[in-house]
Amino acid sequence: LKLLTAARDLKRRKARERNTLFVVEGVRATEELLRSPITTRGALVTAALAEGERGHRLLEALRRVVPEVLEVEEPEMESAAHTDSPQGVLVIADVPERALNDVVVAGRTRILLLDGVQDPGNAGALVRTAAALGAAATIALPGTVDLWSAKVVRSAMGTQFHHAAMHADLKAVEEFLDRNGIPLWGSESGAPDVAASHPAPERLALAVGNEGSGLSPVLRARIQRLVGVPTRAGVESLNVTVAAGIILYELSR
Amino acid sequence: LKLLTAARDLKRRKARERNTLFVVEGVRATEELLRSPITTRGALVTAALAEGERGHRLLEALRRVVPEVLEVEEPEMESAAHTDSPQGVLVIADVPERALNDVVVAGRTRILLLDGVQDPGNAGALVRTAAALGAAATIALPGTVDLWSAKVVRSAMGTQFHHAAMHADLKAVEEFLDRNGIPLWGSESGAPDVAASHPAPERLALAVGNEGSGLSPVLRARIQRLVGVPTRAGVESLNVTVAAGIILYELSR
Repeated sequence: LKLLTAARDLKRRKARERNTLFVVEGVRATEELLRSPITTRGALVTAALAEGERGHRLLEALRRVVPEVLEVEEPEMESAAHTDSPQGVLVIADVPERALNDVVVAGRTRILLLDGVQDPGNAGALVRTAAALGAAATIALPGTVDLWSAKVVRSAMGTQFHHAAMHADLKAVEEFLDRNGIPLWGSESGAPDVAASHPAPERLALAVGNEGSGLSPVLRARIQRLVGVPTRAGVESLNVTVAAGIILYELSR
Repeated sequence: LKLLTAARDLKRRKARERNTLFVVEGVRATEELLRSPITTRGALVTAALAEGERGHRLLEALRRVVPEVLEVEEPEMESAAHTDSPQGVLVIADVPERALNDVVVAGRTRILLLDGVQDPGNAGALVRTAAALGAAATIALPGTVDLWSAKVVRSAMGTQFHHAAMHADLKAVEEFLDRNGIPLWGSESGAPDVAASHPAPERLALAVGNEGSGLSPVLRARIQRLVGVPTRAGVESLNVTVAAGIILYELSR
């Protein structure tokens, strides 16, 4: 793999999808990556990485497990980096092969569906929140930002390296939900308080929509129940991640 | 007011504090500003603003209520802007005079305390969340990012224009809490589930700490109860805003 060229190429979603490769940047996310089962292909590092003790340890770990570690100059790193401050480290790794059929549906099961979430920061925070609150999977429907973009990976703080985050189309998701007897609920601003929806089903998928336009009409038509978080005088809105976090928490009781 | 010079100067926190002025950028935040009681001093706009219908309406509103509206070229706007994409509009306004004594403490009252929150995106999201969930005020303790920085204002989506967000030192906050009989609780990763803390006091202040180091030792020593949100195997952490949102929601029942 020509690491510099590959890293630059992978800035395009199409290139990530064609090669099923993605880029991880920054010290913390890279540490998480090396603790995960994801296969790495190569790493770019700058001299700055090894200056601190944490970076030094990370560099040693990279040299042990990554097939190729290339030291580059700062300007090269900048031209290859997908985010503003890669902190001297960029790793190219395989997008893990995940399928809906691999999602473990047993006991109390929660699935988060992203239906057109566009902001990478929100998408990453949603993956992180779903992982932390014990959801079995986070599934991104078409129209959602690429979960394997460097900004999403960074915002998710590496949680998608082990949490079952994946893309799937609506037909596959519907079949999966039907087959496993999982009802589909949706989060919507102004919908009835989620606290009034108890007892919650043992298995449940919760969909959250686009930051501006909410749930897509096609998904909304399939939703069995809309739930929300009451806000002050109905005037203020909650960030999509905060709303999803509150609903997933409330439904976990 | 020399608008261009002033806007550039106000990038520094010290300048904002000395002049008790701040900058609002972007269409949505400016719309919120004009709906609020906050006094404006002047606005910079580019030709791009009036191109869309929404921007055109905003420009007309600015001309009606802002003392001085100056049209500038794109490069000037860029040099004056505090955020990456000001969308053709930047307004200089007075930081509202707010005091702890003005906070309305009546009936069920929730106060959010920011104790060293450093990320502007998080601070803004916390203000927005507290406002949406009906908190009476959001108070930033020393060590917290300036609530009147353009990034925080943008992330808060204008909620702090009417929600009582303000800075105060620890001594003043303690006196305020004592005087009003408001107990101080803290949010901490790994602390007992907030759901186990019912019944919650009628009046309550909830402190959230720094993204990395959590609550400061000096505040932590004053906290009467630590609450948290249980996460999967204790491994994952929640974003500070999501955790605060869940706790404020849970304590509102």
